[in-house]
Amino acid sequence: MEIRVDLERIKRDILTLAKIGRRESDRGIYRMAFTDADIQGKRWLTQQIEQADLIASTDGAMNISGELSGTTDAPRVLVGSHIDTVPCAGALDGTLGVVVGLECLRTLRETGFQPDRTLELIAFSDEEGRFGGMFGSQAVCGQLNPQSLETTTDMNGVLLRDELGRHGHDALSALDAARVPESIAAYIELHIEQGPVLDRTKKAVGVVDEITGLFTWAVTLRGEANHAGTTPMEMRNDAFMGLADFAHEIPRILEENGSDRSRTTIGKAQILPGATNTVPGLVEFSLDVRDTSEAVLEELGTAFRKALSAIARRRNLMFEFAQKSYLRPVACHDAIVQLLMDQASKLELDHLRMPSGAAHDAQIMGSMVPVGMIFVPSKNGQSHSPAEWTAWSDIEAGANLMLQTLVQLSSATN
Amino acid sequence: MEIRVDLERIKRDILTLAKIGRRESDRGIYRMAFTDADIQGKRWLTQQIEQADLIASTDGAMNISGELSGTTDAPRVLVGSHIDTVPCAGALDGTLGVVVGLECLRTLRETGFQPDRTLELIAFSDEEGRFGGMFGSQAVCGQLNPQSLETTTDMNGVLLRDELGRHGHDALSALDAARVPESIAAYIELHIEQGPVLDRTKKAVGVVDEITGLFTWAVTLRGEANHAGTTPMEMRNDAFMGLADFAHEIPRILEENGSDRSRTTIGKAQILPGATNTVPGLVEFSLDVRDTSEAVLEELGTAFRKALSAIARRRNLMFEFAQKSYLRPVACHDAIVQLLMDQASKLELDHLRMPSGAAHDAQIMGSMVPVGMIFVPSKNGQSHSPAEWTAWSDIEAGANLMLQTLVQLSSATN
Repeated sequence: MEIRVDLERIKRDILTLAKIGRRESDRGIYRMAFTDADIQGKRWLTQQIEQADLIASTDGAMNISGELSGTTDAPRVLVGSHIDTVPCAGALDGTLGVVVGLECLRTLRETGFQPDRTLELIAFSDEEGRFGGMFGSQAVCGQLNPQSLETTTDMNGVLLRDELGRHGHDALSALDAARVPESIAAYIELHIEQGPVLDRTKKAVGVVDEITGLFTWAVTLRGEANHAGTTPMEMRNDAFMGLADFAHEIPRILEENGSDRSRTTIGKAQILPGATNTVPGLVEFSLDVRDTSEAVLEELGTAFRKALSAIARRRNLMFEFAQKSYLRPVACHDAIVQLLMDQASKLELDHLRMPSGAAHDAQIMGSMVPVGMIFVPSKNGQSHSPAEWTAWSDIEAGANLMLQTLVQLSSATN
Repeated sequence: MEIRVDLERIKRDILTLAKIGRRESDRGIYRMAFTDADIQGKRWLTQQIEQADLIASTDGAMNISGELSGTTDAPRVLVGSHIDTVPCAGALDGTLGVVVGLECLRTLRETGFQPDRTLELIAFSDEEGRFGGMFGSQAVCGQLNPQSLETTTDMNGVLLRDELGRHGHDALSALDAARVPESIAAYIELHIEQGPVLDRTKKAVGVVDEITGLFTWAVTLRGEANHAGTTPMEMRNDAFMGLADFAHEIPRILEENGSDRSRTTIGKAQILPGATNTVPGLVEFSLDVRDTSEAVLEELGTAFRKALSAIARRRNLMFEFAQKSYLRPVACHDAIVQLLMDQASKLELDHLRMPSGAAHDAQIMGSMVPVGMIFVPSKNGQSHSPAEWTAWSDIEAGANLMLQTLVQLSSATN
C-alpha cells in the first residue's frame, strides 16, 4: 500500500495558522514579515517540527527548517514556501506549501521511511515583500549584501535592521544563511495557483514548467492641459488619448511579438490635472509585462517602446519611461517536471502542465539549483484576499503528489 | 471723426482690478464670488461708474450696473460680463468685458452721445461657479428659486445664504433681480476666447455665432480585479481596457455623428484598485461632450452609449453612466452677428466668425433675449491661469468694435 498524507492534520495546521495574525474586522490575515504575528507563526512552526520528531533550526535570515536526516551525505532535497502574508491575506498563499511540506516529512518520519538524501522543510522569510520580498530565498542563494541589510526599510520607513533587532536578531547574520549549490539537489514547492486556469479547466493539480519573468515600467506622457470646450480636437495635445492609443495597441503587440504565455497590464494610471472640463496635460501609468521567455520579454519591450514613441510623435507628446523592476524567467528542471508529470499520472490526478504567472521563492532558488513546482487550484482565481480558497480534495491531491515526488527525489540514484 | 475708446483707461482699470484679490505667492487672482475680494471689486466698480457720471445700482443678486440713460423708453441694451474669478485666475477672464463695457459707456457719456435706448453696463455675480455659476445672469432671467437660494453651498460647505448675509445681503432678494424680456433689446458681451483659434490664425477679433451646449457623464465600468501575472489575457475582465477601447472610438464617433464644432474630452479617470500588478477591476471616468447643435449632442449621446454598451458586452464588464450636467446650445442673434461682422469690416479688423466652446453669461441671457458676443485672442489659448493674456492692440480693437456696435444698437430703429 502507498503511503498517504493525513488530510485532517493539514486542515488542522492550516486553520491553526489562519488564527495567527487574523483581524476579526475583515477576517483578513495580517502576518507581514517580521511582525509579532509572523514571529509567532515561526515559533508555532518550530514547535510542530519538534513534535513531528524532525530536527528544527532557524538560520540567519530567520528561515525556519525541519530536517528528516538522510542515510547518505548526498545533496539534500528542500521542500517549502513561506508563512508571511500580504496585509488582509487569505489562509493558503505560501502557508499551504509549508504545511504540506511539514505533513510530507511528518508522514515519512512516522512510517519509518529512511531517505538516502536529507529532506528539509524550509519556510522562507519575507516572500511577500514587506522589505522587498524573497528575502529568505535570496539569503539562501547568497544574493544579499551588507549595505541593503543596513538600509532597507518597509513602506512606513521602519528599518529591516531595527525590526529584526526588536526580535533579538542581527540583520547581518542573514549573510550566514547562504548555502553552496552543491549542498542542494533540488527545491520543490507547492503553491496555490493564484489564477483562474486550474479552476476553470477543472484540474486538480498543475505541474509548473516555467516561472514567468517580468519587467515593469513607469511611463509618462506629457501634452498640454487645455479647456475642453474651447480647444478644437485637432489643436490638442491630449496626454490621456496617447495612453488610450497605446492601450489599444497592446493586443496587436502581443499577437505580433508575444507568446500564449505573455501578459501585459496597465494597472495604475494618473491623469492630470484631472478635471472634467480640462484636456489632460499629463498621464503617468504603469506597464507590467510578463513572459516565460527572456527573448520574448525583450521583443515586447522593443515593440512597446516603438509604439509609445510613434504615438507620442503623432500626438505631439513628450514620452519618458523608467524600468522599475526586472525579474528573469526561470525554467523548472526538466527531469523534475517529468517526474511530477509521471507521479501525477500514477496517482490518476487530472493535471495540467502550465507556467507560473506569479513570482515565487522557487524563482530565486531556480537561479542556483534545480526546482519544481506544484500548483493547486484557486477558487475563482482569487488570492491575496480572505476569499482565497482551494478545495480540501485538491489540497489532498497536491499533497500526495508532493509526498510521492519527495520519495522519488530522496533516492540518491535520482 | 469716429469716436474711439481710450486704451490707457482700459489698461489702468484692468491693472487696478488685477490687484484686488491677487496673491503674491503665485501671482494668481483669487476673487471668487462673494469673497471679500469680490465685494471689494464690486465697490471699486461702483465708484468707477459714479466717477464716469453714469447711474450706478446694485440689484438683488448683487449684480452691479451703470446706466447711460436713453432718450426714449425703448427696451434697453445691456453690455457686460463678470468680475468674479476662479481661484488663481488671470487678469482678463470676465473682467475685460466689464472694463470694456465701462469704457464704452464712459466714452459715449463724455462725447455727449445721446442714445435712443438706455445703455446699461452689467457685471454679473458668480459666473465662475463658486456657488454653481451663472448666478447673476440666471437671476436676471428669473431662473432662480427660493429653495436653491437657501440650500446652495460652495465646495467647502459654506452656504450661499450665509456668505451673502455676511455682506448684509438677503439671499432671497436675488429673486427681485428678475427682469421681463420686453425690457431688454439685446445683451452683448466681450470676452477672451479662452482657446487657441484666434491666436493661431492671427485674427484680432472673433464674432461668436453660436455658444456650445454640453453634457457631462460620469461613467463606471466594472470588471474584476485579478493578478496581472496569473490571469491569462483571455480570462480577464479588465475595466481599464474597456475605457481604452472606448477612448479609441471617440474620433470615429465624432467623424460619424459630430460636426466640426464637436468636442469630446475624457478629463478625469480613476482606475481601481490601482496597483501595477493588478488587472483593474473598476474605472470611473468623466465624459465631456460639446456641440453648438442640440440635435448633434443627442446623436453623440446615443453613439457614445451604444459604443459603451458594446464594449462592456465584449469585455464582460458592467456599465453605468449618470448625466451630471446639461447645458443647451444657444445661437447668437442673427442680426447682431451680422451687425458685428459689418462693424468689424468697417473698422478693418481681421476677424473670424466662430463658435464659443466655453459657457458664458451670454448663454443664459440668450435663453431670454437676443445676444451677441465678441472674442479677443487668448495668447497660447491660455485662461484660468496667471499666464492668461491678450495683446493691448487686440483689446483696443475689440473695445472699438464694441463701441461702434453699441452706438448702432442704441438706435431705437435697430
